[in-house]
Formats: sequence, structure tokens, C-alpha cells
Amino acid sequence: MARARRLGGGAGFIDIGFAKLDTGRLERRGMPEGILCEGKSPAQVAEIFRVLSSAGHVVIGTRASGAQAKAVGRKAGRKKLRFNKLSGTLVLGRARERGGKKVLLMSAGTADLPVLIEAKETLEDGFGIATETVADVGVAGLHRLLASEGKLKDVRFAAVIVAAGMDGALPSVVAGMTGKPVIGLPTSVGYGASFGGLAALLAMLNSCAGGLAVVNIDNGFGAACLAAAIVGQAPEP
Amino acid sequence: MARARRLGGGAGFIDIGFAKLDTGRLERRGMPEGILCEGKSPAQVAEIFRVLSSAGHVVIGTRASGAQAKAVGRKAGRKKLRFNKLSGTLVLGRARERGGKKVLLMSAGTADLPVLIEAKETLEDGFGIATETVADVGVAGLHRLLASEGKLKDVRFAAVIVAAGMDGALPSVVAGMTGKPVIGLPTSVGYGASFGGLAALLAMLNSCAGGLAVVNIDNGFGAACLAAAIVGQAPEP
Amino acid sequence: MARARRLGGGAGFIDIGFAKLDTGRLERRGMPEGILCEGKSPAQVAEIFRVLSSAGHVVIGTRASGAQAKAVGRKAGRKKLRFNKLSGTLVLGRARERGGKKVLLMSAGTADLPVLIEAKETLEDGFGIATETVADVGVAGLHRLLASEGKLKDVRFAAVIVAAGMDGALPSVVAGMTGKPVIGLPTSVGYGASFGGLAALLAMLNSCAGGLAVVNIDNGFGAACLAAAIVGQAPEP
Amino acid sequence: MARARRLGGGAGFIDIGFAKLDTGRLERRGMPEGILCEGKSPAQVAEIFRVLSSAGHVVIGTRASGAQAKAVGRKAGRKKLRFNKLSGTLVLGRARERGGKKVLLMSAGTADLPVLIEAKETLEDGFGIATETVADVGVAGLHRLLASEGKLKDVRFAAVIVAAGMDGALPSVVAGMTGKPVIGLPTSVGYGASFGGLAALLAMLNSCAGGLAVVNIDNGFGAACLAAAIVGQAPEP
Amino acid sequence: MARARRLGGGAGFIDIGFAKLDTGRLERRGMPEGILCEGKSPAQVAEIFRVLSSAGHVVIGTRASGAQAKAVGRKAGRKKLRFNKLSGTLVLGRARERGGKKVLLMSAGTADLPVLIEAKETLEDGFGIATETVADVGVAGLHRLLASEGKLKDVRFAAVIVAAGMDGALPSVVAGMTGKPVIGLPTSVGYGASFGGLAALLAMLNSCAGGLAVVNIDNGFGAACLAAAIVGQAPEP
Amino acid sequence: MARARRLGGGAGFIDIGFAKLDTGRLERRGMPEGILCEGKSPAQVAEIFRVLSSAGHVVIGTRASGAQAKAVGRKAGRKKLRFNKLSGTLVLGRARERGGKKVLLMSAGTADLPVLIEAKETLEDGFGIATETVADVGVAGLHRLLASEGKLKDVRFAAVIVAAGMDGALPSVVAGMTGKPVIGLPTSVGYGASFGGLAALLAMLNSCAGGLAVVNIDNGFGAACLAAAIVGQAPEP
Amino acid sequence: MARARRLGGGAGFIDIGFAKLDTGRLERRGMPEGILCEGKSPAQVAEIFRVLSSAGHVVIGTRASGAQAKAVGRKAGRKKLRFNKLSGTLVLGRARERGGKKVLLMSAGTADLPVLIEAKETLEDGFGIATETVADVGVAGLHRLLASEGKLKDVRFAAVIVAAGMDGALPSVVAGMTGKPVIGLPTSVGYGASFGGLAALLAMLNSCAGGLAVVNIDNGFGAACLAAAIVGQAPEP
Amino acid sequence: MARARRLGGGAGFIDIGFAKLDTGRLERRGMPEGILCEGKSPAQVAEIFRVLSSAGHVVIGTRASGAQAKAVGRKAGRKKLRFNKLSGTLVLGRARERGGKKVLLMSAGTADLPVLIEAKETLEDGFGIATETVADVGVAGLHRLLASEGKLKDVRFAAVIVAAGMDGALPSVVAGMTGKPVIGLPTSVGYGASFGGLAALLAMLNSCAGGLAVVNIDNGFGAACLAAAIVGQAPEP
Repeated sequence: MARARRLGGGAGFIDIGFAKLDTGRLERRGMPEGILCEGKSPAQVAEIFRVLSSAGHVVIGTRASGAQAKAVGRKAGRKKLRFNKLSGTLVLGRARERGGKKVLLMSAGTADLPVLIEAKETLEDGFGIATETVADVGVAGLHRLLASEGKLKDVRFAAVIVAAGMDGALPSVVAGMTGKPVIGLPTSVGYGASFGGLAALLAMLNSCAGGLAVVNIDNGFGAACLAAAIVGQAPEP
Repeated sequence: MARARRLGGGAGFIDIGFAKLDTGRLERRGMPEGILCEGKSPAQVAEIFRVLSSAGHVVIGTRASGAQAKAVGRKAGRKKLRFNKLSGTLVLGRARERGGKKVLLMSAGTADLPVLIEAKETLEDGFGIATETVADVGVAGLHRLLASEGKLKDVRFAAVIVAAGMDGALPSVVAGMTGKPVIGLPTSVGYGASFGGLAALLAMLNSCAGGLAVVNIDNGFGAACLAAAIVGQAPEP
Repeated sequence: MARARRLGGGAGFIDIGFAKLDTGRLERRGMPEGILCEGKSPAQVAEIFRVLSSAGHVVIGTRASGAQAKAVGRKAGRKKLRFNKLSGTLVLGRARERGGKKVLLMSAGTADLPVLIEAKETLEDGFGIATETVADVGVAGLHRLLASEGKLKDVRFAAVIVAAGMDGALPSVVAGMTGKPVIGLPTSVGYGASFGGLAALLAMLNSCAGGLAVVNIDNGFGAACLAAAIVGQAPEP
Repeated sequence: MARARRLGGGAGFIDIGFAKLDTGRLERRGMPEGILCEGKSPAQVAEIFRVLSSAGHVVIGTRASGAQAKAVGRKAGRKKLRFNKLSGTLVLGRARERGGKKVLLMSAGTADLPVLIEAKETLEDGFGIATETVADVGVAGLHRLLASEGKLKDVRFAAVIVAAGMDGALPSVVAGMTGKPVIGLPTSVGYGASFGGLAALLAMLNSCAGGLAVVNIDNGFGAACLAAAIVGQAPEP
Repeated sequence: MARARRLGGGAGFIDIGFAKLDTGRLERRGMPEGILCEGKSPAQVAEIFRVLSSAGHVVIGTRASGAQAKAVGRKAGRKKLRFNKLSGTLVLGRARERGGKKVLLMSAGTADLPVLIEAKETLEDGFGIATETVADVGVAGLHRLLASEGKLKDVRFAAVIVAAGMDGALPSVVAGMTGKPVIGLPTSVGYGASFGGLAALLAMLNSCAGGLAVVNIDNGFGAACLAAAIVGQAPEP
Repeated sequence: MARARRLGGGAGFIDIGFAKLDTGRLERRGMPEGILCEGKSPAQVAEIFRVLSSAGHVVIGTRASGAQAKAVGRKAGRKKLRFNKLSGTLVLGRARERGGKKVLLMSAGTADLPVLIEAKETLEDGFGIATETVADVGVAGLHRLLASEGKLKDVRFAAVIVAAGMDGALPSVVAGMTGKPVIGLPTSVGYGASFGGLAALLAMLNSCAGGLAVVNIDNGFGAACLAAAIVGQAPEP
Repeated sequence: MARARRLGGGAGFIDIGFAKLDTGRLERRGMPEGILCEGKSPAQVAEIFRVLSSAGHVVIGTRASGAQAKAVGRKAGRKKLRFNKLSGTLVLGRARERGGKKVLLMSAGTADLPVLIEAKETLEDGFGIATETVADVGVAGLHRLLASEGKLKDVRFAAVIVAAGMDGALPSVVAGMTGKPVIGLPTSVGYGASFGGLAALLAMLNSCAGGLAVVNIDNGFGAACLAAAIVGQAPEP
Repeated sequence: MARARRLGGGAGFIDIGFAKLDTGRLERRGMPEGILCEGKSPAQVAEIFRVLSSAGHVVIGTRASGAQAKAVGRKAGRKKLRFNKLSGTLVLGRARERGGKKVLLMSAGTADLPVLIEAKETLEDGFGIATETVADVGVAGLHRLLASEGKLKDVRFAAVIVAAGMDGALPSVVAGMTGKPVIGLPTSVGYGASFGGLAALLAMLNSCAGGLAVVNIDNGFGAACLAAAIVGQAPEP
């Protein structure tokens, strides 16, 4: 295991040739390294999971294919491995439950759920942070959202992640209803001039409700990491 | 006055060299020709206003400058001329009030008002259609919109024009609350990644509320023409 | 069945976990909820169709796959189900014919027909509104359009939907020939610099004929909802 | 003063015709309404400031011009008014200091400072939250950032705002060094293919450091609101 | 005067330090070099005009400012110099009339005329080719175009240049009516989502009438050069 | 066979329900109608070919699939049918050779050939115009182009079509070497930031050689139609 | 073998009909011609490899498919042929090792390796230039890069190629640490708003570290050619 | 003067509050820090120049205004200060001439010269590297470039910078003629669809001549830094 000149702690890594696994990330950032599986061979993914898991880390892969999931299972053991086909999330190990504040997850439509599930699994399995999900409350039928207004005021939630494709309008509306940090998670759901989620992304960046946090299109993992960092600032109850 | 081979009526025009004024538009389309003043010299604008007005038309100019307004005043008479500096609308003459259904005008913010005013003046002065305006009901404070919910159900309105910049979310929310035709009017209000109204435009095109009509950015005149065509389908009370 | 705080009526919905079916939409907006099937599992689509149909609604799905159509057939009965493979429309039930004004449908080319068929089925099956179709009257051979000029003046039509890809020029020409509301429906037909329908979309938004309503690329469902809302303003003959 | 049907509290507003001032925002969201001055007349801006200030609010305007600042001064009193010409921020009143966690502000270059100042003034004046600024630590000279590494670990800061134009690389590097929530604030500084901040915005959205929050280009006010919401989750020491 | 290794003739040039004037262009291409004045100092423009004129060339400058026109007048003589303020064309000398086929010029609107004038002056003054202009025949009032149908069949015209901004639909319609080469000349006239002429440009590139030639936005000079090359293929009558 | 009000001749068409075949195009424009096969069913394509062929037309289809070619063969006879798999061109019948001026075809690289072949077949089979092809003379090895300089001066060619992907630089260079009309034909060959041919398209539109005609990306058919129109202006030798 | 008028040497080529193989490139530019295999038929690729190899050249193909590799193997011999499936590089022959300065290759992540391998094989096989690779040193874990700082100062390297997708931040950081020429090689790795590598490309073009060289997205071949040209300026040790 | 933990040397900087001047850049990178003056106040620019100059550095500012130049002159002395109004370059001090290899500078047109001058001044004044300039050799008149072919082979030049706007074709042609590293410098010269230099930028990134280095639009400073780094690899003669 190579060791960089330390930058104040959390500067270790394991060099396996085609990758330098950032084992110090947990110490430095309080979060495990996420593995973008897309573009890696199944053998590479399996080796990365094996090494990180052996070093005691929970390992979270995103955009994993079935073949990659199988390769990891063969190499790193199927017992602690969970693969969500819908969202492409591949998780090895599970963080111990923290017990503090929770994160509220909302989706504008049913088709936004896979992305939201990536966020949910990252929070629960990777960070041990509990979540609650409110699905399909898009602004075309506002009363569905208003029926969940109570949750937006519930002090047990430290942050809200709102997934929306198409017009991306829901995060603006939600951010206008709560003082909690709201994370807009644009999805590629939509067609024509949604341009793969660009319309939703731009809408969220231009939210008329000040203070909306935006992450990349379909990036449930990133939204979860941000929410976890916010939870990390909140006191345990 | 030249005369094209008739296409079933409404095919007359007046040729003044640098322009062929479409005097048949009223018969054909039930609406006067709009004059985009931008890019024309004050003398050209004045001559167009003079000729059309002499032919008995109400004349509506958009994006007019002060210099153009003055030139028109000198040539066509200041009496029946109204210039709105804020919206750049220049109107000569006034259509007689129709008395039928009205059009409801809504803006997400105060800065969207000039564009909405262009729509209002086109409807009232150009078509004789009455309007009512509800300003500043953007989705960041939803209760402001809900306080006007009654108007969205009011049968005296045949259509709703909703002007919004930034995230362009308001038309989606409004379209989800009413069965009337809703016209999304994106404005260039906003900054950074609003890209001159593109974000609002895309949001409206991707509205999760089915059936939103969208017009060009800052195109209050076009929104009004569309609303007038819809009113034209509605029975007089 | 959950019930939101009412927003003046039409505020009911059915919560089935992964979706909150907006059963109040009919009361609120006079139109059924459209189901974007893309991005949902066949089981989810089938359950949504079953529940909405049981509640007495006509259900319209867009962008449905064969597998989704089959799943719906198994769960909700094949008898009242119609699947159009070309357009991907999946309809369960049929609205009773209204008998009032009709909608005129036009396409610039033959390849624009699937999108137009989505509009036609939404209008006829979902709203009970009759339509007539004039195919392949693109501006490269103007005489074909002029041969149908009579229909553009026919008072039995309350609105015109014009589908066009490529240069998207037809809606501008049509809007210049009639006082009826014209709905420009850009399609992704074309190649190279059509950029998936962007060229046609921009052309329609910039129409030199004032008052063109524009909807999203390939969004036949949305065009139909808008036309239905306009028909809703027109008096029954 | 009109009053909407309450949505669970924080639903009041003051209707002054051209604006509906959302006085409930403080109760609902814990933050004052921000006034985008651009696109409003000086008289409108002044009236909004006067009314909100009379109602006991701290008022923050962004993108204010000198003429608008003067108009506000005449109407609402110059005593409690602060206008920052560089950043265009106009603040009337000052929130009482909270005393809890602080926010760390970083800029990649000197030219990014005006945007950072907008964030600083919003936090300090609008929310009473203390800040510290570390300027000009762009990645082209990494040692400048490393010299401030201690601050990134300092528990007195609940969040970090990082302003960067050009390649927008700094927030990625910072987010890789700390577990605190990091807010990427892209600026329009740069030329050629920076396309007004688009390059920096895209870089931040695609950060290889998971969990970066991104706000709109040059949107110091929004970054501050987000930071304040995060501080709101943190316990007072 | 430097002399490159000859590439089959027409390979001469005059080197004046900051420019290498392509005096062989006339022999090689049958057309004079166009001088884009924008971005050059008045002194540079004047020197280029003086040298080329002394060498016996007609000199055509585009996008010239008043200051540049003055500088040229001082240096190269005001007698043979014509400056069109509207189009920014600056011409020194005049080609002798050719007497062969002519070029037909059409504009969709009055605001497209300055660009068309650049084409007209280039053709008449630079190449000695006669033109006729038909202004303001946009597709929103088709009968105006049909009234000029005869010219589209007139054998005295070898090519048609059609300038249009906004939806850029006119060239498609014209190309569908004639077998002559049609040159689509998009202009930046329009607003909002015309994006400086992009909408018109894309529409023309995607014309459903096969065989439309397209040039750059507002590039009247280029359209004229292309038309001249086509005339060069046509027999003198 | 329906008949539109004649627009001065060439206004006939055949209505087959899903298409209105523009049989007057030959008279009006001197060119047959091109059939974009993409997006049509094999049965539709076959019927269109059968009807047009029966009416005595040469029929040219672009972007045809093998299945469409087969369907046409079954219905319209395989004898006179030629299908080029590489370019997707499907031609039924052959125009009689004209014997006049020819068209020169050039490609920057070998991968640009399929698009050039579409142009060649349209010219030879559809119009009876002879062509010559010079392949792979991209600007990275200029001497290859200079070796063909003679052809650029050859009076037997009335126009030059230059296909290029990637940087799209070849048409600029060619246009600088000849006075003939040059048609830039951008192709989608390239990768990364070629964005499907956009880079080549923009380069050609911005050619520093005045007078380049540009057509849509990969539009060999359109380039050929334009070339044929130019040949139509040239005298037979 | 045709021979162009010589442009000072290196002006030979072999004309095989569908291609003109630039055999003079080695003399002119010191580098072999690269063959973009995409868009060519296997037979064409095989013939090009055979002819160039017979003429004594090392032949490098990029974006080759398995079918193309097989066709080349059959025609040109499998012995000296190497096909890298991951990167799509197909190399026939091998340049003799130069022995001079080396090139340092760095990747931000494991998924960027295939593109880097294309660069490595081009340098080693095509130019005989030695390389060293440092993989997976993205800026999210800076200590991994700092651990390799020594190599950035090592005088045996004449240039550094840095491949990065997503935020494209690594080349900026590297360029800030060394005086050697740094070549930014953006990759299409990433998702959502990476837009196929556009985000990384823009970030590199806007690098705050002056003097970064940028090549096209995923263009490992181009980066290698540039590095080789730089090595060509460096003295052999 | 603060001092970061050293990263292997060259890690010093001077903290003046609003800026941290990277005095180690010379040791680390062999090049002075460039000061982007745009977006800084004259006082800030002057202070930066004063401090860096006092520390013995040559200081180079880009995009400087006259007011900034004056402020620097007042504070840092006018004697050693040179301001080029055309290019906006502001240089204080002058590097001693190196005497080694030179850099060749080429421009496609006269209007590209200001950007090229920024490169020239950076190289000569900032690095002490000699240059030669060949202006106005755009590809529309290829013989002008061929007349300078000798320079492209001259061993005294270690690199070539080629500035071009519009179609950006010149760097491709030049790179095809020489084995030296060629740096493509796109400029914003052009109009319409040049989109501020985007067309030229894309053309260069997609160059068919392998190995072209590309820098940001109008970034003469960056091109010079890259050229200097390449010269740094070349042996002194």
C-alpha cells in the first residue's frame, strides 16, 4: 500500500495498477468512494470491490451491469452483495445505522424512481442514514404534494432530495415550502426537447426559490452524498 | 393596390415598395398584422402605420423605440397613438370592445410584467378583448397563487396567459389547476444558466401538465394572438 | 384512498405506493391523466391501467412497448384495450362521443403520421372529439395544401394541429391562412442538422404568423390535450 | 393585506398590485425574500423595499443599479441601507448575529470576488451568519489552497462556498478534501469557450468528488441561502 | 510584389505586411476579394482599399463603420466610393455591366432588407450583374408571394436569393415553386428563441424542398458571390 | 387524381391517402420528388414507388433499409430497381442522359464516400447528369488535391460537390481555387467534438472563401438537386 | 503511383481509387498516416493496411471493429498485427525504438484508460517513443497525484498526456505543477450533463493554468501525435 | 509572505488579501503568472503589478483596459511598462532574450492579428523567446501560404502558432505541411454562425491532420505559454 505525503490525514490509497483506491476518503470526507462501473471491465470492477471490501469498506457501485454484478459476486462473495437491476446500484456490505436525522426523498413521477432508489441505497447502505420516500407528487396535481406537506416540516428530516424529469418544476415548489436544504435531482425522464434531462437541470438551476442545491442529471449517488454531508452537520437527536 | 390571385378571400395587400402590407389578414385571420419595429428605420415604421391606419386598421407595433414612436406620431397623428415605453408596444387606433369572453393574465414575478403588458395591450387595443391581470404569483410562494384559484375556474375567462422567466414553473402548476387552454409565455428574466429565457422555454415545452401551449420567449404579442383565436372559438355569453 | 386538502375541487388521488393516481384531473381539467409508459416496468404500467380503469377512467398511455401492452392486457382485460404499434399509444376504454366541434389534423409528410395518430387517438378515444386528417401537404408542393384550403375555413373545426419535422414550415403557412387556433407539433423526422426535431421546434416558435401554439417534439398527446381544451371553449353546434 | 388559504403556516403576503410580497417566507423557510432588482423600475424596487422593511423584514436586493439604490434610499431611508457597487447587492436592515456555525467562503481568483461578496452579504446581513473568506486559491497553484487546508477541517464551519469561473475545477478539489457540504458557485469569469460561465457550471455538475452542491452561474445569493439552510440544521455550539 | 509558386494561374498577391492581398482571385475565381472590415483599424482598411484599387480592382468591404468609410475616402478618393450605412457595404469602383442573366432577390420581411442590399450591391457593383428585388413576401401572407410567381419562372433570372429571419420558411416555399437554384440567406431578424438567426439557418438547412443552397447568417456578400458563380455558368442571352 | 387550383403549372398531385405524391414537381422544378424512406413502413414506401413509377417518374429514395428495398422490389418490379446498401439509395428507373455539363464530386476522406455516392446516383440516375469522382483529397495532405487541380478548371464541369466530415476544411480550400459554384456537403464522419457533423457544417458556413453553398449534414440528395439546378442554367456544349 | 506537383518534399501518394494514401506524410511530418476505421468497410480497411504496409509503413488504425481487424489479418498477415479490443487500436508493424525522451501518461480514472491506451500504442508502436503510465489520480483524492509528483519533474519526460472525463479538472492541476508541455485529453466518461465529454473539453479549454494543449474528445491518437511532435523537438540524451 | 507546505519546490506565494500571488510559478513552471485584468478593479491590477514587479518578476496582463494601464503606470512606474491597446496586453519588465529556438506565428486574416500579437508579446517580453510573423495566409488563397512553406521547414522554429477565425481551416492545412508542433488558436473573428469563435474552435479540435494542439478562443497568452513550454524542451542551438 502506497502512501502519499499526508495532506493532514486521510491521504492513504491502495495502488492496484489500473486504479488507486482512495481508502482515506472515509477519514477525510466521512464517505466511502463511489465506483462508477460504466466503462470498466467486469474483472476490474470485481477486483476493486474485492480490495476495498477486504480493507473493511462498504463499497457502492453505480451504473453496474448484470455481468459486472456477477463478476463481483464470484470474486467478493454473494452474501453481502445487493444488486438493484432497476437503478444499477451494486452494494457490498452495509454501514451500521447512525440513528440521527433522516433524509426525505420525493419524486415527481413514477419513472423518476430508479434514480431516487440509487440515492436511497447510497444513504441507507453506504452511510447508515434512514430515509422515507414520497413518490409521484409532480406539480400537475398539486394536491398530492400538499397532502405530504407535513413531512416537509418534520424536524426528523435534515434534508430533502427531490427527483424530477420533464419540466423539473417540483424542486422549486418544494423549496418554497420548507426551510430545510432541498437537493434538486434532475432525471433524464422526458422526451423531445427535454434533451436527456437538460430542461429539468436548467429549470432547477434557475429556481425562483432561492437556495436550491442541484446535482448532475440522474446522479442519485451524488445527491445522497450531499444529503449525508448535511446530515453530518445536524446534531443527533 | 396590387392584388394576388385570391386564395379564397382575404388575399389583398398594399405594396409600398419596402413592404407589402397584408390588409387581408383581418378577413383571413380575424387579427390585424403586427409590426415588428426592431430593424426598421423610423421612417419605414411611420409609413407603415400611416398606410395601414388610413386603410382603417388598428396598427400594433412591438419592440418600438422612442424615435420610432415619435416618427409615427408626426406622420400618423398623436391623437390615437399610445406608446408603452416599458413594453415597447406602439398602438394606433383601438378595436371596439367585443363583450364576449375575457383572457386571464398571470405573471410569476414583477419583472415579467412588461411582456405581459404587451399581451394585454394587444388583446384590449388590437382585438377589443377584455383582460384581468394577476401579478407575481411565482411558485416559490404557492399560497399567492392559491389565493387566486377562483379566477382559474371563472367561466368568464376563455384562456389563461402565464408569463414566467427563470425556472418557468408557473405555467405547469396553473395548467394542472384548470381545464382552460393555458398559454405559457417564457420571458428572458433571469441570469446565468437561464440563457436568455431558454431555461423557461424548455421547462414549459416539457410541462408535466399535458396540453400547455408555448410561444416564443418574450413574445407577448404572439400569446395574445393565440388567446384571441381561442376566444374566437368561444360563444359570446 | 388518500385525500389531499381540497384545492377547490378535483383534488382526489389514489395512492398505490409507486404512484399517486390523479383521479381528480377529470373534474379539475376535463381531461384524463396521460401515462408516459417509457421508464416504467410493465407491471407498474399494468397496475396503473387497472386501478384507473376500475375507477371508471379512460386510460391513455404513450410510448408504450409491446411488453407493456401485453402486461396491461393480462391484468386489465384485452377487450377494451387498443394498442397502436406505430405510435406506441395504448388506450383502455373509450370516451363517449361529444358531438360538438371537431379538430383538423394535418401532416407535412407521411413520416409525421405516427405522431399525428397519437393526437388523433387521444382526441377520439380519450375525449370523444371527432377529427379529420389531411396528410402530406408539406410546403415544398404548396398546391397540395391549397387544395385543402376549404377545410381551414370550415366552421365545424375548432382548432388545427399541424405536425411537421425537417424545416417545420407548414404550421407557419397554415396559421397564415386561418383564424382558428393552430397548434404546431414538431416531429423528430429529418436528419443531420434537424437535431432530433430541434430545427422544426425553433421554426415554429419563431413563426412569422402571430399566434401559433407550440408543443414539445413528437408530443401528439399534448397537442391533443391543448386542442381539447380549446374545443371545450367552443359552443356545441 | 390579503391572506391565502393557509398551507400549514407561513402563507401570508402583502399585495401591492405589481407584486405580492411573500411575508410568510421567513416563517416558512427561515429566510427573507430576495429581490432581483434587474428588470424592475427604480420606483418599483423602492416601494418593495419600503413595504417589506415597514413589515419588519431585512430586505436584500441583487443586481441593483445605482439608480435603484438611490430610489430606495429616498423612500426607505439611507440610514440602514448598504449598497455594494461591485456586487450590486442592496441591503436594508441587518439580521441579528446568530452566533452558531459559520460559513467558509473561497474564490479561485480575484475576479470571482464580487460574486462571493454577494454571498457574504446575504449570509451576514440577511441571516446573521458569520463568514470567513479565503481568496484566490485556484488550482493552477495548488500550494495556496493547501496552505488553507486547516480551515477545511475546522468544525466551526458548517459549509463551504467555492466560487470559480474558467475551468471551475476548485470546488472538485475542495470537495475531495473535506466532509463538509461544499457549494460550487460558478462565475462568468473567463473568455472564449467559457460561454459566460457554462464551462465552470458543467465542470461542477460533473465533479468527480461526489456530493458537490451546484447553484446557478453568478448566483451568490442562492449559494448563501443554501448555506444558511445547512447552518440551520447544525447545532449551535 | 511577392509571387507564390503558381498553382495553375491566379496565384499572385501583394504583401503589405499586415495583409497579403489576393490579386489573383479575379483570375482564379472570377470574383474580387471581399474585405471584412470588422476587426480591422480604419487605417488598415483604407490602405487595403487604396492598394487594391490602384491595382485596378473593384473593392468591396462588408460590415464597415462610418469611421472606416471616412478613412477610405480620405486615402482612396471619395469620387468612386459608395457607402451604404444601412448595410455597412463600402464599395470602391464599379464593375462594368455584364448584360447576361440577372439575379432575383426576395425578402420575407422589411427588416431583412439591409442584408439583401449587401447582396444587391455586391452583385451590381462588384460583378456587374443586374438584380430585381421583391420585398416582404413572408409566408404568413402567402398571396403576396403568389403575386410574384411569374418572376420565379422568368428565364432572365439565373438564380434566386431569398433572405428570411424568424422561422426561415420562405426559401423552402420558393424552392418548391421553381427549378432555378435558390439561395437561402438566413438573417438575424427575430427575437427570443431565434438565437440570432440560428432558427432560420436550421430551417433552411432542413428544407423539405430538395436542393436549397444555404449561406451564413446575414451573409449577403456570400450569397451574392454564390449567385455570381451560378450566373457565370449561364449563357449570355 | 386530385388537382389543386393551379399555381401557374406543375400543380398536380396524386392522393393515396397517407401521401400526396407531387407529380407536378418535374414540370415545376425540373426534378423528381425524393422519398425520405426513414420513418415510413415498407408497405408505404413500396406503394409510393409503385404509383410514381406507374405515372412515368424516376423514383429516388434515400435512407432506405433492406426491408424497404425488398418491399419495393416485390411491388414495383426488381428489374429497374437499384439499391445501394452503403448509401441507402433506392432508385427505380433511370433518367435519360442529358449530355450537357457534368458535376465534379470530391471527398475529403474515404469514409465520406457513401454520402457522395448518394449525390452521384441522384445526379446520374435521377437527372441523367454525368459525374466524375475524386476521392480522399483532404487538406492534411494538400498535394493530393493539387494533383487534381486541372479538374477544377475544366469547363466541362458546371459545379463541384465537396463532401467532408471532421474539420470540414476541404470545401473552403476548393472554393478558393475555382470560380465554379462549390457545394459544401458536411458529413457526420468524425468523433468527439464533431457532434455528428456539426463542426464540419459550421466550418463550411463560415468559409473564408466567399460564395460556398452549404446543404444539410449527410444530405447527398440535396447537394445533387442543387447541382442539377445549376447545371440547368448552363448551356449545353 | 501518382505524384503531385511537389510542395517542397513529402508530396507523394498512392491512389487506390477509394483512397489516396499519403505516403509522403512520414517525410513531411515525421509521422505515419492514421486510419480512422469507423465508416469504412472491412475490405477497404484491409486494402489500405496492405498497401501502406507493403510500402514499408507502420500502419495505425483507430476505432477498428473486430470484423475489420479480421479482414486486415487475412489480407496483410496476422504476424505483425496487434488489435486492442478495449481501445479499438489496430497496428500493423512496429516502429524501431527511438531511445530519446519519453512521454508521461496520466488518467483521472480507470474508465479513462482505453483512451490513454490508444495514445500509448500510437507512441510506442507508431513512433517508437517510450511511455510510462500513472492511472487513476483524479483530483477528488489529490494525495494520489502528489505521490507521483516526482515524475512530473523527471527530465526524461518531454511531455505529459492527461486523460480525464467528468469535470476534466486533472489537466489543470497537473499543468500547474510542471513546466513541461501538458496535453489535456478529454474523454467521454461521465453521465448526465457531461454531454459525451463536452464538460471535460470545455474545462480543459478554460484551464486556469496557462498553456494547456487540448485535443478532441477520446482522441488518444491525436494526443500521441502531438506528444511525438514535441518529443521531436527535444534533444536525444 | 505566507508559505505553503512545499510540494517539491516552487510553492511560495505572496498573500495581499484579495489575491495570493503565485511567485513560485517561475520555479515550478518556468513561466510567469499571467494576470487576467478583466473583472478586476484598476486598483487591484495596479497593486498586483507593483508587488510582483517588486519581487523581480516580469508581469503580463491580458485584456487590460486603458484605465487599468494608467493605474499600473501610476503605481509601478511607466518606464518599463508597455501597453498594447489593440491586443489589451500590459507588460511590466522584459525577460532577457534566451537565444534558442524561435516560434513561428501565422494568421489567417488581418483581423486575427490582435490575438496573435498577444501571443507574440507574451513570448518575447515574458519569456525572451524570439518570433517571426506571417500574416494573412488564409486558405481561400492557398498560394500565399505556399509562398511561406520554407519557414514551416526551418529548423530554427520549435513550434508554430496559427491564429484563425471563421472556418478555422488554416491550422489543419499547416499541420499537414510540417512535423513541428502546431498550436491552433481560434479567434472570435467572423459573424453569424461563427458563434463567437465556436466554429473555428470545433474545426481545429476535429482537424484531419493528427496532432494539432488547440487552446481557448482568443487566448493568445495560452498559446504562447504552450509554445514556450515546447521551446523549453528544445536544445539551444
